[in-house]
Amino acid sequence: MPTASRLDPPGPQSIGAVDPTAPLLAEIAASGALPPRIVIEQVRPAVDGGRFAVKRIVGDELDVEADIFRDGSDQIAAALLVQIPGTVEWTRIAMQPLDNDRWIARIRLGQIGRLRFAIEAWTDRFASWRGAAAKTFKAGQTMTMVLAQGRELLAAAISRAVGDDRERLLVIAEGYDKTSDDAARTDLLFSDGVAAAVALVPDRSDRVFQDPPLAVIVEREAARFAAWYEIFPRSQGTLPRRSASFDDCIGRLPAIQALGFDVLYLVPIHPIGTMNRKGRDNSVNAVADDPGSSYAIGNRSGGHTAIDPELGTIDGFRRLVCAAREHGMELAMDLAVQCAPDHPWLQDHPQWFRRQPDGSIKFAENPPKKYEDIVNVDFDQADWMSLWQAIKDVVLFWIAEGVKIFRVDNPHTKPVIFWQWLIAEIQRADPAVLFLAEAFTRPKMMNQLAKSGFSQSYTYFTWRNTKRELIDYMTELTDVEMMGYFRPLFFTNTPDILPSYLQTGGRAAFRIRLVLAATLSPAYGIYNGFELCEAEAVPGTEEYAHSEKYQYKVWDWDRPGHIKADITRLNRLRRASPALQRLDNLRFHEAAHDDVLFYSKITPDRDEAVLVAVTLAPRPVVRTEIVFPLAAMGLSDDVDFETVELFTGERRRWRGARHLIVIDPEVNPAMVLRYQKRPMAGDSTTGGTP
Amino acid sequence: MPTASRLDPPGPQSIGAVDPTAPLLAEIAASGALPPRIVIEQVRPAVDGGRFAVKRIVGDELDVEADIFRDGSDQIAAALLVQIPGTVEWTRIAMQPLDNDRWIARIRLGQIGRLRFAIEAWTDRFASWRGAAAKTFKAGQTMTMVLAQGRELLAAAISRAVGDDRERLLVIAEGYDKTSDDAARTDLLFSDGVAAAVALVPDRSDRVFQDPPLAVIVEREAARFAAWYEIFPRSQGTLPRRSASFDDCIGRLPAIQALGFDVLYLVPIHPIGTMNRKGRDNSVNAVADDPGSSYAIGNRSGGHTAIDPELGTIDGFRRLVCAAREHGMELAMDLAVQCAPDHPWLQDHPQWFRRQPDGSIKFAENPPKKYEDIVNVDFDQADWMSLWQAIKDVVLFWIAEGVKIFRVDNPHTKPVIFWQWLIAEIQRADPAVLFLAEAFTRPKMMNQLAKSGFSQSYTYFTWRNTKRELIDYMTELTDVEMMGYFRPLFFTNTPDILPSYLQTGGRAAFRIRLVLAATLSPAYGIYNGFELCEAEAVPGTEEYAHSEKYQYKVWDWDRPGHIKADITRLNRLRRASPALQRLDNLRFHEAAHDDVLFYSKITPDRDEAVLVAVTLAPRPVVRTEIVFPLAAMGLSDDVDFETVELFTGERRRWRGARHLIVIDPEVNPAMVLRYQKRPMAGDSTTGGTP
Repeated sequence: MPTASRLDPPGPQSIGAVDPTAPLLAEIAASGALPPRIVIEQVRPAVDGGRFAVKRIVGDELDVEADIFRDGSDQIAAALLVQIPGTVEWTRIAMQPLDNDRWIARIRLGQIGRLRFAIEAWTDRFASWRGAAAKTFKAGQTMTMVLAQGRELLAAAISRAVGDDRERLLVIAEGYDKTSDDAARTDLLFSDGVAAAVALVPDRSDRVFQDPPLAVIVEREAARFAAWYEIFPRSQGTLPRRSASFDDCIGRLPAIQALGFDVLYLVPIHPIGTMNRKGRDNSVNAVADDPGSSYAIGNRSGGHTAIDPELGTIDGFRRLVCAAREHGMELAMDLAVQCAPDHPWLQDHPQWFRRQPDGSIKFAENPPKKYEDIVNVDFDQADWMSLWQAIKDVVLFWIAEGVKIFRVDNPHTKPVIFWQWLIAEIQRADPAVLFLAEAFTRPKMMNQLAKSGFSQSYTYFTWRNTKRELIDYMTELTDVEMMGYFRPLFFTNTPDILPSYLQTGGRAAFRIRLVLAATLSPAYGIYNGFELCEAEAVPGTEEYAHSEKYQYKVWDWDRPGHIKADITRLNRLRRASPALQRLDNLRFHEAAHDDVLFYSKITPDRDEAVLVAVTLAPRPVVRTEIVFPLAAMGLSDDVDFETVELFTGERRRWRGARHLIVIDPEVNPAMVLRYQKRPMAGDSTTGGTP
Repeated sequence: MPTASRLDPPGPQSIGAVDPTAPLLAEIAASGALPPRIVIEQVRPAVDGGRFAVKRIVGDELDVEADIFRDGSDQIAAALLVQIPGTVEWTRIAMQPLDNDRWIARIRLGQIGRLRFAIEAWTDRFASWRGAAAKTFKAGQTMTMVLAQGRELLAAAISRAVGDDRERLLVIAEGYDKTSDDAARTDLLFSDGVAAAVALVPDRSDRVFQDPPLAVIVEREAARFAAWYEIFPRSQGTLPRRSASFDDCIGRLPAIQALGFDVLYLVPIHPIGTMNRKGRDNSVNAVADDPGSSYAIGNRSGGHTAIDPELGTIDGFRRLVCAAREHGMELAMDLAVQCAPDHPWLQDHPQWFRRQPDGSIKFAENPPKKYEDIVNVDFDQADWMSLWQAIKDVVLFWIAEGVKIFRVDNPHTKPVIFWQWLIAEIQRADPAVLFLAEAFTRPKMMNQLAKSGFSQSYTYFTWRNTKRELIDYMTELTDVEMMGYFRPLFFTNTPDILPSYLQTGGRAAFRIRLVLAATLSPAYGIYNGFELCEAEAVPGTEEYAHSEKYQYKVWDWDRPGHIKADITRLNRLRRASPALQRLDNLRFHEAAHDDVLFYSKITPDRDEAVLVAVTLAPRPVVRTEIVFPLAAMGLSDDVDFETVELFTGERRRWRGARHLIVIDPEVNPAMVLRYQKRPMAGDSTTGGTP
């Protein structure tokens, strides 16, 4: 829901009403209803007080809480109304009072989609009567009047009831009426049976609703937990200076599967523009067999729904989709809303592009970067709705081809209201579809995109290296409100980012960043080459030397020095470990050494803990004291507990919280300990060789 | 604004819309406008995200902040739109960027009433052009195209301008057009003069508004800072067993003025019911000359707009209003929405009262308290609007008689939406009117009443005695969001509450509670008798023995053991001390002893500080180290500073933070130190005898 509108821009004179209560009261008076007496507020979970939907994963439990109270001393009752995804009916679930006027209801999120909930509360007249009557009784006062009131409430309940409910109440009323003894009547009306019978036909005549209802986007597990592997499909082959095909990609699947990845992310696979095509190393003049940038989308042979003929055909793509699925992976596709100058849209929809004073169209820029081979669509033009629709059609096209994850390029340069619309539209059609926001921009905009519906978000992880930086950043990401809408995906590297830490830190640096990404965040990814410790950059930049972005590349996937065993171990541990599949359980612990980060993830039931002590400095051996979070692990100071270490496979018994450890980054830069309350015999998910 | 409505209670099937974006977009498309690109959110100050108005005092500065940003790299501008109380025009004030997309504007609140504000933001196209053009220039690239775009923006500015603004821009355009030299044109368009000329006619065509506007209730100083003195007017005289008159009250004014009070609060002054009238000590059978409870309002001679004949006439009341004003005080009146059984409303508006099954009307109860002499009006009946109106008319009646402060009895037993309506209605008619909520109930309801518009609120102060209790409670009350709507008024005692601490603690206990109330809270009050250390209670209760509530009383205002000198000193200090006139500057500091509370209030400019070390135990002498907040006072460790102590008048020089002090509660239970950066010569507001 947008917080701002530029509909028919008003003069400041016309903004809003003077007193919001007045029109409401006029409406109430006109309707013949009574003004509300119950207050419902501070409803949680909610993002920005309900402006945006909160996000959850299917299978999660959702605790809905609210402050609910009314004036006076009458008792109230409250219910959570839930509209499960894809239905129009609402289900009522009783809420329970906590303390201090806080109420709660818990539901299990059983299916994906957009769930809505509202809270309803009403005065519980029978319970109020019973409470007041009990005081009169205790005080030894005459019950006659009190009983007569109870009898009136009973009559009212009968009038609301039908069928068995009604019969039951009529029997009670008969029992009441056939005696005139106050003691007998008191016993009868105070009985739990009567309370239960009346509770079946509650008087909700003064009920109030929290307004408007709140929404929960319930997504599938991959929105929170997944390991991504990013490739240029054209560079997955073995022949130099020419494009690989989708079938070459299929040939790569067993190796990628063996590494343990869940998502195979393809950079754009569409025809590449020929006008202003980029040459090797981002040169502005392409030569004959330069393939150009995959992000310069579209040429004479098609645009966003076409396939680069060099990669194959739509049939080849379909084979890849199926093969990936057979290898336990799914494809993620790039959605880059931009065009090469020879994209068909420029001919077919010239109104979508803004002309400069000389009639030309400005190429894209992100100073100091220039994209001479790309022009942007213009969202600020009268025909915006057809542009929006065209982009939606692109997404629907690929959904029909089996793609359910879209990594969106530079969403922060398009209106957030567009993403709100697009994601809501798409997820209404298919709630299994996920969107990942590739926005490296100012924090407020990154958060706004997440609030707008992106399932996952790129982060600043790549540039957080020191202990202080990492703790501060993770603290921000694990803020309760932020976790409600922002799900991080930690890439160790991307085609645009070879961090200087990796350029200079050697193999140990790659292993350190791998451990951090894979254990700090339930969703993480690498861009291919990372497993080979590829570290050659354009000097003074974070760009890869001879970047795949502008040329074909043939990789030697078994190049000496690779860290594939580490990746395999970590991905295997991640899949086996419920503790690593969530973010909210991350806790940092004391490690005396400034270069050692020590943290844990523990399951809520304490059945499993993963403890990671990692050096952030790729070189010297470090010795440090660390302090285990024994209380959080459900352990006392005086019992032994056993862990298995990921890299060495070592089983070790510990006792007490404080221990001295030694980390030699040339051997293993981290100690990744798994503790299980009930370890399984022969558990192969930690330790050992892959 | 109510958070819940019971208008035409919908079935749960009918709640809300499926996707809030969709209808908005349909509306935008229909209007021919473009979708918004700017986001405005996290606007502060706001109570519950803007559901309720925030409160301020006239003369305060209001800092309005918001997150404002847009997609892409264009620059934006933002303005705060302000509608000052009582006007319909909106004033535009430029907002300034802070860091991280946060913007701010500051306004001075110059008059009381309900101010509204909204935020407006738009893309600053000329600044965006200038920023991008500068990059092109720096890169040494050709400026021709860039200049042509600048010239287009200039033409657009001309088309928006009139008069001098237009002339100025036309001269610039002429200068541009008469040269064809890019360098000259660049110099011209980049000049600050051009930027300033264009800024006078900004292009706000894509502006967005935060929606809806937020409100600030700006009230007069007395809403934050005042010392109250509560009396039963009928017991201000000298003759036993008969009522004093308003003229007796007038006779008391010089003494009350000498004590330094600002507000003289009268319990209800209306005719008292004769049916079920209470006798002495709350007995259910009044005898002939028992006056009854002032809260059993109304009899044959009139109701809430009438005056108890024993106190005098409306003329007598008018004399009291004027005399109080002449003595530098104003009257506060009790608003108790309840009736004696012989109140005229029962005859004239029988529909406002709920009948029991036997046709009788239930008397009021607040278990275990019973009020046989009082019946409550029923807010849940079809004729509610006439009841609301009647209560409003009561308030308007007394406003016309010069009363501007209403202390509302038990507001938590009436619908909060009623108070929202009443206070908004009354303050629209007269924004100087203040309401004090006497609600001792659950915290959420107390807060809700404050959000609903009550200027001030009773608190739990009376029952917070230990160091931990006081620090915790003050921490809660000084929470930034809570201070935005909840203003505490600390009563040391009330006709209903003689705290056990005062019953058992002797004179020192009264002095301790006086110091706490008068220095912790800018608004505080005592109920008469407190200054005489009246401590006799009904055993086992917090009720006064032989309470004034049920009988005439003659007080000896000079009774030995009184603490009038302390009250006078404290009220004089409060009036002289800007530091004590606010709540947000309260800070607690280290005092080693568990019974010693040490705190400060310091003005933002650090010109003045009041430091209070008070023992919370009325008996033993305590020795403790205290730690001065030197940094907050703007002092360093190695300079001397001088304080004046309130009770002893002692001037003392200190150096450094840590000092050992001794407090003997039999002499003075507190050390109240005033520090002034520039003490005035012969300042008599601290120390000395009154």
